[in-house]
Amino acid sequence: MLKSWNDGATKSAIVDFVARATAEVPPEERVAVFDNDGTLWCEKPAYIQLDFLVRRLAEQAAADPSLKDKQPYAAAAAGDLAWFGDAVTKHYNGDDSVLKILAGGILSAYAGLTVEDHAARVKEFFAVARHPTLGRPYTACGYQPMIELLRYLEANGFTNYITSGGGRDFMRPVTESMYGIPPERVIGSSVGLDFVDGDLKTTATPEFLNDGPVKAVRIWGRTGRRPIFAAGNSNGDIQMLEYTSAGPGPSLGLLVRHDDAEREFDYTAGAEKVLGLATDRHWTVASMRDDWTTVFD
Amino acid sequence: MLKSWNDGATKSAIVDFVARATAEVPPEERVAVFDNDGTLWCEKPAYIQLDFLVRRLAEQAAADPSLKDKQPYAAAAAGDLAWFGDAVTKHYNGDDSVLKILAGGILSAYAGLTVEDHAARVKEFFAVARHPTLGRPYTACGYQPMIELLRYLEANGFTNYITSGGGRDFMRPVTESMYGIPPERVIGSSVGLDFVDGDLKTTATPEFLNDGPVKAVRIWGRTGRRPIFAAGNSNGDIQMLEYTSAGPGPSLGLLVRHDDAEREFDYTAGAEKVLGLATDRHWTVASMRDDWTTVFD
Repeated sequence: MLKSWNDGATKSAIVDFVARATAEVPPEERVAVFDNDGTLWCEKPAYIQLDFLVRRLAEQAAADPSLKDKQPYAAAAAGDLAWFGDAVTKHYNGDDSVLKILAGGILSAYAGLTVEDHAARVKEFFAVARHPTLGRPYTACGYQPMIELLRYLEANGFTNYITSGGGRDFMRPVTESMYGIPPERVIGSSVGLDFVDGDLKTTATPEFLNDGPVKAVRIWGRTGRRPIFAAGNSNGDIQMLEYTSAGPGPSLGLLVRHDDAEREFDYTAGAEKVLGLATDRHWTVASMRDDWTTVFD
Repeated sequence: MLKSWNDGATKSAIVDFVARATAEVPPEERVAVFDNDGTLWCEKPAYIQLDFLVRRLAEQAAADPSLKDKQPYAAAAAGDLAWFGDAVTKHYNGDDSVLKILAGGILSAYAGLTVEDHAARVKEFFAVARHPTLGRPYTACGYQPMIELLRYLEANGFTNYITSGGGRDFMRPVTESMYGIPPERVIGSSVGLDFVDGDLKTTATPEFLNDGPVKAVRIWGRTGRRPIFAAGNSNGDIQMLEYTSAGPGPSLGLLVRHDDAEREFDYTAGAEKVLGLATDRHWTVASMRDDWTTVFD
């Protein structure tokens, strides 16, 4: 197990922690939480979910000419993914100006569908969509070493959850096949749902933005436990890592550092703060370049 | 199994449904949801959680004389549980006037605690508190036939969840020992939590009132599945039952009817509407008096 991890301090920190946890922590309390974008799957040049949303916004712009000169429809119609990525990066740095323009369009993009129809749209997307530069389907953009880590934790009695800023119902249709994580263990952002004639339908009203302190709150809300393992990669993961690290027993906070321009991407935007805290908080940093023998399967 | 259920139409409906479900539904989709108050444990003469809250309000009234003539503190100090029960019954019948007076006091009763300290208070309560008329600890107020039903479903590959209007973090400390349901499978009402210095603390701000259509919405939010079995007993369970029954495959909606003044209580208040719908919606009604050989263990 962990065969895609190079021997060294990072791998040792993981193995040592798991040995301590299995000795000291009862199985039901071995809860592990994983961010998704940039931690389990690739988030560059833009979030995979943005591609899903942008395709829909472009469809809407094509169907309604009055939308063509308005953002976010104009950027969608032009295929300008960077405009969308910038909105989110700015958000992580405290500037929500572009995100606000984006939000209305995004929230209404898939409104009015039953949750089953929404899941079908997500499956159709993943069946055909490919990463724009890596030359592989998005469903093959999960990090092989992290998938091995999920299996390793599972083999040691851990229960793995995803807790992501990404959309709960965008991730669920693929988390079982990509990560072995079933829908009931996916925590993510969501829009409100309306109960209509026995069915649940998506609305354009935000429910949760699962980011920052909200991640910690919702881990408790969903599991009733404080995790003993947390993996993340961006500033939105700080509180989840702090919550995990503040527990009374053994714990491990793991950060994925994107420093591998050759095999994936090299960036720290949106992660400056969390990386700056790592040493002080005793979080382990996994260098994609140095710690992983391979990035993708 | 189901040894506390009399042979008859109700037990047959359960057994036949389970046979169909195990034949036609894959195990991961065998999701069963149970209301708690009045479905898994006794809710009369007042909700068990009200006793927990009223004890705290009485403590607060004793500590602060300015509260003594104000509701809900006056009722708490006088041990007037009926005042509180009425508030909730009125709510189920569309009148929130008393509930509003109650809400502020209840919401702030345990505010400012870490979730661990809150859980410790709940455990202390259940260690000593006894049902006022049944002569048994609250932890022995779970319905034996329903506990057997939980085990029967589990033995047939079902995953059981609680979805209750009661407090999520009030139920969690006892659901594993009473029902074999772990905290991550308890969905309930909640107050917001604040993330403070690595810990989560209760606030006085309501987050979810897990009742009516909200039950259906949150079953999806938590599980990402439509249940195939739902058990309830009151008007707040209607949408959860409808959501379950509207699925494409086999499903069973079960209602507990409280008609056993001798062994438990005999009442329909707060359940008139759901009982009135049962025949039309093909929900199975379990008569406590006729279908159960025993109520408590």
